[in-house]
Amino acid sequence: MTADTITAVDLRINARWIIPIVPAGVVLEHHAVLVQSDRIVALLPQPEADKHYRARETHQLNDHVVMPGLINMHGHAAMSLFRGMADDLPLMTWLNDHIWPAEGRFISPEFIADGTRLAIAEMLRTGTTCFSDMYFFPEVAAEVAHDVGIRSQVCFPLLDFPTAWGQGPEDYLRKGEQLIDDWQGHDFIMPAVGPHAPYTVSDGPMKEAVALAARKGARLQVHLHETAFEVQDAVANTGLRPVHRLAELGVFSGRAQLVHMTQIDDSDLAALKGTGVHIIHCPESNLKLASGFSPIARLMDTGLNVALGTDGAASNNDLDLLGEANTAALLAKAVSGDAAAVSAHQALAMATLHGARALGREQDLGSLQAGKKADLVAFDLSDPFLQPVYDPASHLVYSRHGRQLSHSWINGVPQVQNGVLTRIDVADLMLKVQQWQQRISS
Amino acid sequence: MTADTITAVDLRINARWIIPIVPAGVVLEHHAVLVQSDRIVALLPQPEADKHYRARETHQLNDHVVMPGLINMHGHAAMSLFRGMADDLPLMTWLNDHIWPAEGRFISPEFIADGTRLAIAEMLRTGTTCFSDMYFFPEVAAEVAHDVGIRSQVCFPLLDFPTAWGQGPEDYLRKGEQLIDDWQGHDFIMPAVGPHAPYTVSDGPMKEAVALAARKGARLQVHLHETAFEVQDAVANTGLRPVHRLAELGVFSGRAQLVHMTQIDDSDLAALKGTGVHIIHCPESNLKLASGFSPIARLMDTGLNVALGTDGAASNNDLDLLGEANTAALLAKAVSGDAAAVSAHQALAMATLHGARALGREQDLGSLQAGKKADLVAFDLSDPFLQPVYDPASHLVYSRHGRQLSHSWINGVPQVQNGVLTRIDVADLMLKVQQWQQRISS
Repeated sequence: MTADTITAVDLRINARWIIPIVPAGVVLEHHAVLVQSDRIVALLPQPEADKHYRARETHQLNDHVVMPGLINMHGHAAMSLFRGMADDLPLMTWLNDHIWPAEGRFISPEFIADGTRLAIAEMLRTGTTCFSDMYFFPEVAAEVAHDVGIRSQVCFPLLDFPTAWGQGPEDYLRKGEQLIDDWQGHDFIMPAVGPHAPYTVSDGPMKEAVALAARKGARLQVHLHETAFEVQDAVANTGLRPVHRLAELGVFSGRAQLVHMTQIDDSDLAALKGTGVHIIHCPESNLKLASGFSPIARLMDTGLNVALGTDGAASNNDLDLLGEANTAALLAKAVSGDAAAVSAHQALAMATLHGARALGREQDLGSLQAGKKADLVAFDLSDPFLQPVYDPASHLVYSRHGRQLSHSWINGVPQVQNGVLTRIDVADLMLKVQQWQQRISS
Repeated sequence: MTADTITAVDLRINARWIIPIVPAGVVLEHHAVLVQSDRIVALLPQPEADKHYRARETHQLNDHVVMPGLINMHGHAAMSLFRGMADDLPLMTWLNDHIWPAEGRFISPEFIADGTRLAIAEMLRTGTTCFSDMYFFPEVAAEVAHDVGIRSQVCFPLLDFPTAWGQGPEDYLRKGEQLIDDWQGHDFIMPAVGPHAPYTVSDGPMKEAVALAARKGARLQVHLHETAFEVQDAVANTGLRPVHRLAELGVFSGRAQLVHMTQIDDSDLAALKGTGVHIIHCPESNLKLASGFSPIARLMDTGLNVALGTDGAASNNDLDLLGEANTAALLAKAVSGDAAAVSAHQALAMATLHGARALGREQDLGSLQAGKKADLVAFDLSDPFLQPVYDPASHLVYSRHGRQLSHSWINGVPQVQNGVLTRIDVADLMLKVQQWQQRISS
């Protein structure tokens, strides 16, 4: 490009600070992001951008930090309709006495559509531009995500027993294969295989899940080592820790996403090392259900990729991924006994690039680099009570009060503008949520 | 009172939900709080309030939960000017290489005045109506708190070595006694004795601090068992764990507030049991500095009162006490291995009534009951992305995103109205904060 060439682009975002995630630990000041169609074309100091680009639309974000959209790697979106219905209970009581009965009464395609939209609204409003979901009627969740225009890995559930969505393993696998065939290769909707957990999926269906994922080149997400009880019970029943059982069943590969991963011992680490599996860390859910601590600093030292998830709103109880990054960074320090473990910048990478890696979409997502998809979010740090700002990464991760998501774009398309959702009819959604609350409370 | 009697009062607050804290675990729906002058006169169902009271001013809070003002029992308010200046470092590196040098360069009465006002603004905006402070120039902090009209326990610092505020133990004690004489018995400003920590205060001054607190009937607050290093180092140097040393020095009584209290073993519990000491739990600071875990469920089972503190903004990094209650409730479950430990209602009691008890002000503060001071806060739960609301206590504690402090009153005087601070000139404060940022960054 010569000094005289002016390139026309669709969108220019001028920001006080940009955290591109790659290169790691960097904060750019007074830079611009240039976007053409669905991709980033350049990241430049603003005077350089003036020389080389003319934009159809420019946003002046003078008090903001711009970063890649957040990637929430684990949740059960429609459970937002159950948020706060049953708290302060251990996992199995919570599931057996509250969540599973409520699911038995209410789960339907309409519940999934409304609950998923509610969750997407909260996620967009807190900076998430891509989320993983594992719940019933995944074909409905996929349609809702596609309709809104948010990226979603949609894992179809697989269990030994029947639910509202299927008769049993064969039926889940048949419907799941259809989901994969319907969406595979789509830019926004990433279908995946979701065997629920070692204690709900026996060896045969687990092997079929692995085979299906391999055949289709799809990701496989499974809850694993969520609680001490799960591990003890498995050892009593099978003689094997769940990590070892899944290793024998061929689950571990670069396609596998292992969610929770508490109660990790040296033998587990040895079984995981070098397999390329991705760890999905959900610290707030692990704390709230007293599940235990995931040793993420050790897992990362073993060379494993660790991404973040909120889990469902019923066990968290919010879908704010930066809040999860805060908890992850704080907790990792205390669990490892090292205040330098998981810095603010590392926590931001876990919430972005590491998620992209777990999805197999690192070439497209997770950092602000020329050629990547234009999934961007802007947080306003002008709140008086956040001042002074010495380091915007620190404020994003460690100062939860006051930072506000102001803008987001997915594929260059605005999703939040000045805090307002552009593609969800909030009033209509609230009416539907009120109706669900009345039915569920009665 | 006969059916015909109508009593005139200053203020009536109608709320969708009221969490009075006493009785425990209760949520009142569609009730009213009646306030005359600085005290609550009644809490009634709204139709009952209509019959018996006429209010000069009424607030209709239809989407709100009203509760007692939050009591933040530990912090270093003016350190808000250092927020985010140095993160991801262990306690002693953070103190020796960053905080103490910065304090050496910048601490002055002006720094304390501006930093304390900044912290008070953030605390008021997040629902705190009473806070404990321990920092240099406490007489300046006391004046600022008094000027704004927020309650404050002002602990004067005591250390073996000189600082900007004093030459050494004798000087600190002399100035501190003056502070106590100036303010003791004041409704808003509660002067207290603040020996910094076992590793910074030797036996002589510690005993003098205890004697001064006893003579004046003042509270005594001390950092204790913050880190494993503190405990190991003390054992190596003195042969005693810090808890045992302070027990021998006579520190433990119903006047003592012990801050942090990680690394607690059975011998520590035995030394604490029955002494009436108050534990001030600062979970986010303990995590962030990798200090360790305080076993608050065990401490409460031992019969000790556990209140909450944020610690300073430089080691947290916000002063949002409900956020701290969230972290305390989540962490207690995982540390104790019991998902029923520290329920949402218990976490709210820790953030209110338990603080009042630690201050010796339980007769006045910490719950909404007739006869108590009118320190009230209202959180708006109308945010679409908080719906549905089954249990407002759960939303306050577990769903951090979306809840907003809308109103607060201290002694019946409005401090926040519709989210706006009424007694702090925010624009003027921001100018001063910018000047400090420039000086500190340069």
